[in-house]
Amino acid sequence: MPASAALPDLFPGAITQVRGIETGHFTDPRRPTGCNVVIARAGAVGGVDVRGAAPGTRETDLLDPANLVGVVHAVLLTGGSAWGLHAADGVMRWLEAQGIGLPVGDAPGQIVPIVPAAVLFDLHVGDARIRPGADAGHAACQAASSQPPAQGNAGAGAGATVGKLFGMQHAMKGGIGTAAVAVGGVTVGALIAVNALGDVVNPATGQPIAGARTADGGALRGSVAAALAGQAPLSILAGTNTTIGVVATDAPLSKAQCQRLAGAGHDGLARAIHPVHTMSDGDTLFALATGQAPTLDFNVLCAMASEAVARACVNAVLAARGLTTEALALPAACDLAAGNGLAALEPIEDFIIQDKPM
Amino acid sequence: MPASAALPDLFPGAITQVRGIETGHFTDPRRPTGCNVVIARAGAVGGVDVRGAAPGTRETDLLDPANLVGVVHAVLLTGGSAWGLHAADGVMRWLEAQGIGLPVGDAPGQIVPIVPAAVLFDLHVGDARIRPGADAGHAACQAASSQPPAQGNAGAGAGATVGKLFGMQHAMKGGIGTAAVAVGGVTVGALIAVNALGDVVNPATGQPIAGARTADGGALRGSVAAALAGQAPLSILAGTNTTIGVVATDAPLSKAQCQRLAGAGHDGLARAIHPVHTMSDGDTLFALATGQAPTLDFNVLCAMASEAVARACVNAVLAARGLTTEALALPAACDLAAGNGLAALEPIEDFIIQDKPM
Repeated sequence: MPASAALPDLFPGAITQVRGIETGHFTDPRRPTGCNVVIARAGAVGGVDVRGAAPGTRETDLLDPANLVGVVHAVLLTGGSAWGLHAADGVMRWLEAQGIGLPVGDAPGQIVPIVPAAVLFDLHVGDARIRPGADAGHAACQAASSQPPAQGNAGAGAGATVGKLFGMQHAMKGGIGTAAVAVGGVTVGALIAVNALGDVVNPATGQPIAGARTADGGALRGSVAAALAGQAPLSILAGTNTTIGVVATDAPLSKAQCQRLAGAGHDGLARAIHPVHTMSDGDTLFALATGQAPTLDFNVLCAMASEAVARACVNAVLAARGLTTEALALPAACDLAAGNGLAALEPIEDFIIQDKPM
Repeated sequence: MPASAALPDLFPGAITQVRGIETGHFTDPRRPTGCNVVIARAGAVGGVDVRGAAPGTRETDLLDPANLVGVVHAVLLTGGSAWGLHAADGVMRWLEAQGIGLPVGDAPGQIVPIVPAAVLFDLHVGDARIRPGADAGHAACQAASSQPPAQGNAGAGAGATVGKLFGMQHAMKGGIGTAAVAVGGVTVGALIAVNALGDVVNPATGQPIAGARTADGGALRGSVAAALAGQAPLSILAGTNTTIGVVATDAPLSKAQCQRLAGAGHDGLARAIHPVHTMSDGDTLFALATGQAPTLDFNVLCAMASEAVARACVNAVLAARGLTTEALALPAACDLAAGNGLAALEPIEDFIIQDKPM
C-alpha cells in the first residue's frame, strides 16, 4: 500500500442539487465537533436503515413504512454521541419559527416538525464536555442554503476519524462529504459524515485512501488485509465510531421505497468503507424523497444511491484536513499523500484544541 | 353501559417495588403536561416494543437485541409530543452529574448516559407552546425516589386523555398509573401513561371505566361496541394519542428477553384499552431488567408483565381527576361514577389552565 499514491480527485456534485433540499452546518469553535442539518422545507417522504450495532438515534420508529407519519422536515447528523441528540431541539425550534412542521391544531404552538436524527461518537477528540446542543442545531439551520455543503472538517465531520481498528494512535482524520449523480432529470445526492472504525477505500480501485496507519504512522496498513493476515485488532471502546448520513432524491417515493433507498445507500458504505457496519459502528442512513422530479426506475435509483454514498465517503476523507489534540495526532489523506503522516504530530491546521469549555 | 357503575378499587403495588428502580416526575404548573423518569442507577438491561403507528421515540435502535449497548440508565416518558424528547437532555445531564452513564474514557465529559424515551401527544390540552424541556427532565430526576410514584394527573399523565374515537368533545381524562405483581421473590412492575384513542376497560369484567362518552356526555358509550354498531368515528388528527410506559423486573434478563417482555406488556394494553395500537396511537413500551432478584420462568414473567401493565392502565384512569381548559371539558372516571359527567364543564380540580406561558 504505497502511502504516497496520488489521491483521486474529489467526486462532483452535492446533495443540494436535489430539488427541495437545503443543508447547513455548525462547527463548534471550541473543539472539533458540530452538526449538519438537511432541510426539506416543503417536506419529504422519509426512510431509515440502521445497520451498525451501536446506533444513537431519534424519531426513527415513525419512519417505519407501517407507521403513520408521512413527512420529514429535516434530518440532523451530529457529533457528540448521544449528547448530540439535544441539537434536534434547536432544529425543531428553527423550523417552528418558519412555520414548518406537522400542524396539529390552529392554536399557537400546535405544530410538530418531524426531525429524525443520528449521532456519531467524537468525544475522544478534544474536550468531551463540549457537545453540540440546541444552539448548534439552530445555528446549522440558520446557515442552511441550497449551496453545496462544506466538506471535510465541517459540522458533524469536524471531529470524525477513521481507521481505528488498530487503536486511536494509528487513526486518521475522517470528515463529511457530499456527492450527487443524475439520470434522466432525477438527482440522487448524499451527505455522509464518515467516522468509521474501518478504512475508506476508493471503490473504483480498492485502494485505501484513509485508515489505519502502519506502526511508524507514515503509511496505510489496509485494515482488512492486515486483520486477515493475522494482525490483532486493538480492543476499542464500544460505540466509539459510526458513519451517518442522508441520501436524498427528487424522485417521488413511498416510505417503503425510502427505506430501501437507505438500504441501497448502505451498499455504498460497504463499497467505500472496510470494514463497515461493525459492532463498534452505529452506521445509520436516512433517505428523503422530495417528489419534485419525474419518476425513475427504482433499481436505477438504488444504484444511484449506492454510488452517491460511496463517492461522498471518498470526498469526506479527501476534503479532510489533519488535526492534533493534546492526546491525538490525526493526519488526513492529503497529509499521508504528501509524506506528512508523521508531521501530523504538529498542530497542522486551524483546530488548536482549547482544553476548557467556554 | 351504566355510567354510574361502582368503580373498582385501585390495584396495589408500584414499579418502585422492583429492586433497583426509582421514579420521579415533573408536572408543569402552567398547563397539564409533564414527564416521568424511571431510573436504574446501577443500570438495567433494556428492550422496547413499538406497536402503535404514530410513535415519537429516542434511542430505541440501540435496544435492538442485535445491537451493542447492553445497559440503560433511565427511561423518559413525556408529554409534549416530539417536543418532549428535549426533556431527555435534562435526564442525561442529571445522570452525568451523579456519575451514571457509559464510561467512554477517563477525561472529563467522557460519559454517555443511555436514556431511551417516548412521547405522548397532549398539545390539545391547554397552551401548546408549553412543552416539557430539559429542565422538566432534570426536575423529574431530582424528584426521583423509591417511593410509589404519583398516579393520575401527574407527570406525563397530566395532560393525558382517553376515549377520543368520537372526538375530543366526548373524551375523558387519562393519566399515569402503576402496579406490580410478585411471584417467588421476583417483582414485575409497570408505569404507564394512558393517553389512548380508545377506552380503558376493566380487564377482569370487560366494563369500560373511562372512554368516549355518549352524546349528552354523562355516560360511557363503549367505543368498540359503538363502532361495531355502525357509529362513525370522528376523524381526528394523526398521532394525537399514544400510551407509553415501562415494564420493569428485578429478574435477570437478556436484551432479547427484555424486548419480549415489552411485547408481553403490550398484551396488557390490549386487555385494558379498546381499541389500542391504532394508526393514531404511538404505543411504545420499554422493558428494564435490573437483575437484582432470582430468575423466574420466562413465560411466568411475561404473564406478570401483561398483568402489571393492564392494572397500571386501570389505575391511571381511576386515579385521574377531571379538568377543564378553555376548549375542553375532560371529566374523569370518578366524575362519571358520581354522575358528574356534565358537571365537568366547570373547573373541577386544581388544574385551572393559564392561557399564557409563564
